Amino acid sequence: MASLAQAEELDAHDPLRSRRDLFVGSDDPGIVAYLDGNSLGRPLRASATRLAEFVPDAWGARLIRGWDEEWFDLPLLLGDRIGAATLGAAPGQVAVGDSTTVLLYKLIRAAVDARPGRREIVVDTDNFPTDRYLVEAIAAERGLVVRWIESDTRGGVTAPELEAVISDDTALVLLSHVAYRSGFLADVPTLTRLAHAAGALVLWDVCHSVASVPMDLDEWGADIAVGCTYKYLNGGPGSPAFVYVRRELQESLVQPIQGWMGHAAPFDMGPGYSPAPGMRRFLSGTPSIVGMQALRDMVDLIDEVGMHAIRRKSETLTGFAIEVVDDWPASWGVEVATPRLPGSRGSHVTIEHPAFREMTAELWRRGVIPDFRAPQGMRLGLSPLSTSHVELWNGLEAVRELLVRR
Amino acid sequence: MASLAQAEELDAHDPLRSRRDLFVGSDDPGIVAYLDGNSLGRPLRASATRLAEFVPDAWGARLIRGWDEEWFDLPLLLGDRIGAATLGAAPGQVAVGDSTTVLLYKLIRAAVDARPGRREIVVDTDNFPTDRYLVEAIAAERGLVVRWIESDTRGGVTAPELEAVISDDTALVLLSHVAYRSGFLADVPTLTRLAHAAGALVLWDVCHSVASVPMDLDEWGADIAVGCTYKYLNGGPGSPAFVYVRRELQESLVQPIQGWMGHAAPFDMGPGYSPAPGMRRFLSGTPSIVGMQALRDMVDLIDEVGMHAIRRKSETLTGFAIEVVDDWPASWGVEVATPRLPGSRGSHVTIEHPAFREMTAELWRRGVIPDFRAPQGMRLGLSPLSTSHVELWNGLEAVRELLVRR
Repeated sequence: MASLAQAEELDAHDPLRSRRDLFVGSDDPGIVAYLDGNSLGRPLRASATRLAEFVPDAWGARLIRGWDEEWFDLPLLLGDRIGAATLGAAPGQVAVGDSTTVLLYKLIRAAVDARPGRREIVVDTDNFPTDRYLVEAIAAERGLVVRWIESDTRGGVTAPELEAVISDDTALVLLSHVAYRSGFLADVPTLTRLAHAAGALVLWDVCHSVASVPMDLDEWGADIAVGCTYKYLNGGPGSPAFVYVRRELQESLVQPIQGWMGHAAPFDMGPGYSPAPGMRRFLSGTPSIVGMQALRDMVDLIDEVGMHAIRRKSETLTGFAIEVVDDWPASWGVEVATPRLPGSRGSHVTIEHPAFREMTAELWRRGVIPDFRAPQGMRLGLSPLSTSHVELWNGLEAVRELLVRR
Repeated sequence: MASLAQAEELDAHDPLRSRRDLFVGSDDPGIVAYLDGNSLGRPLRASATRLAEFVPDAWGARLIRGWDEEWFDLPLLLGDRIGAATLGAAPGQVAVGDSTTVLLYKLIRAAVDARPGRREIVVDTDNFPTDRYLVEAIAAERGLVVRWIESDTRGGVTAPELEAVISDDTALVLLSHVAYRSGFLADVPTLTRLAHAAGALVLWDVCHSVASVPMDLDEWGADIAVGCTYKYLNGGPGSPAFVYVRRELQESLVQPIQGWMGHAAPFDMGPGYSPAPGMRRFLSGTPSIVGMQALRDMVDLIDEVGMHAIRRKSETLTGFAIEVVDDWPASWGVEVATPRLPGSRGSHVTIEHPAFREMTAELWRRGVIPDFRAPQGMRLGLSPLSTSHVELWNGLEAVRELLVRR
């Protein structure tokens, strides 16, 4: 039987346990269990300091000179750092800026335009809503067809499922590395190889995996990846997203939102748009410099501990969550919607029950903060560096109490 | 002759003079004259405090609950406040989010799609580069034609110039309220009436006017406006832009970057995109909440002092700048590129000289910070609330010294 003692034991043997204290609110008695770090990660204390200093020391003191001295290159420098720390990407292949939605729009457009004559975009039915909406909108405006893979709320896309729909008419495959509902972890190298064998490009949405699942995008031959920074990268609400584009592909992709920041000669302000070489061409307008500040601290921390230690902690946390829920009587009707093999899941566990919608509000009032995903999923987001096993146990105890009381 | 004594006299009679102390760096001896508030406004001291408190008190303490409690509605609430304080817009017509470039892209696309059958987009040759690049890209992808108005670096677009190119084939007219180089102030009501008489829509780029020139967009019958917040709205480097869409037009405009934040039921996460009613439909992905914080303080201050007092101060500052430069010997060859009638200019003054490119670097070293715009323009951005006449005098004295020394 899973127990508080077991949670304490797991914490005692956790090599990352001391890192939890680096986060704001880890000592807040009002927050019993924060289980939504996969929607909005906790801030690092270092980020609180950095943001406090940013206004007087950088913006206020350097003023417009800050652009020349640091900010103009920050989207690419910070991109390189995210690439090295979390994506397995050599320098010059990652840029930070815009929202995930805007970056997905730009890169889906650029990718389908780079495969003229091919008429299909492949995406799965349980991919994140924005990904689906964008594919539908772009297919409609470019005269293309959406080829759907039927995925469900408890799974993700497998190689046979991709093989069944891909063809020499496929321009682009858009898949999530970790499924936002189930937590299913896709096999990036295999699926990428399949897409390439058919001559298609692949765009990986890594929002729910980046900084919790190690990646090796260069090694895997990935084409394009787009990810969020406010989840496991702890960048703060609405912090800008990032895009990875394999070096050899960059010059062949032209994105549609052509602004001065992506121009080859941004300060000439002359007639006609000419895309910058390298990753700068994927920028459009002025990126949020304030929004990038907290990211720097999280990348520092990931550099220090390494993605593999983070992944091991993630597996222990998600495994313990499943063990606890498995101990609950079957008659309660709670089901685990996340793959049971550690190698097949990311860093969140979704459990399902018809009462979870209303129960979530009561849990929040008690300082236990999971996420709810319609129709009946409770997502337990287990951010490896800021979550302890005892915290997780306490959170699940609160869920158990509410279930018992029904 | 303009003089330091005159500058002191103007400051003594300036009803807004005490407000300058509210800004970070106003007492920094290393900054002799900050004349680039039209590129990046100085931070308010209140914003330094707000940003310092944001991490522990909002993000860190409220965590994901912050979205339900405040952030989800912030793009529209803050939009309403900007609309009331600076645009002359009734509530429900302004949203904050994305960069200026991305908002321009979305709204240009939406506007031309709302005038099917019309094949032309009108824009002027000296509009801001991003505006021109976007019009060219969108015209190419939608099979439309760009009709150029020849404007130059010392002027802007007048009614006869617009009349000469507009027709029943014009889908959209894209113009700047204040020209980014010359400072020319366009006659919005007249130009809007002309466009409407031809059945076209008008998109006003108000980046260089918002919060320095009063607007009455509702009264003027404007269709769409997009503006920056890091200039005279002092939102910080890369703070998100805003978009105004006249209420009656909103439901007829469909923007192309369809993400979950603009969906009618964002948390259902169901199949198919259905745009939200009202301004929310113009949002795409998760907007930068951190990037919106400083804006709140500037809107508070504008509410307090009012746009008309700001405009009066702006006219005094720009008038004094022109007076000072007019006193310099004609043999020096410095020319004023900004309209001399106060009612025909915004809040920056551009002066031209072949030596200004190299001179700008030396000025920056001396703590005098104007902007340079190729090929030979020095832009003196005179942010009304944070700039004094003595500061302007001191900055121009430094320019004069470098000119004398040549």
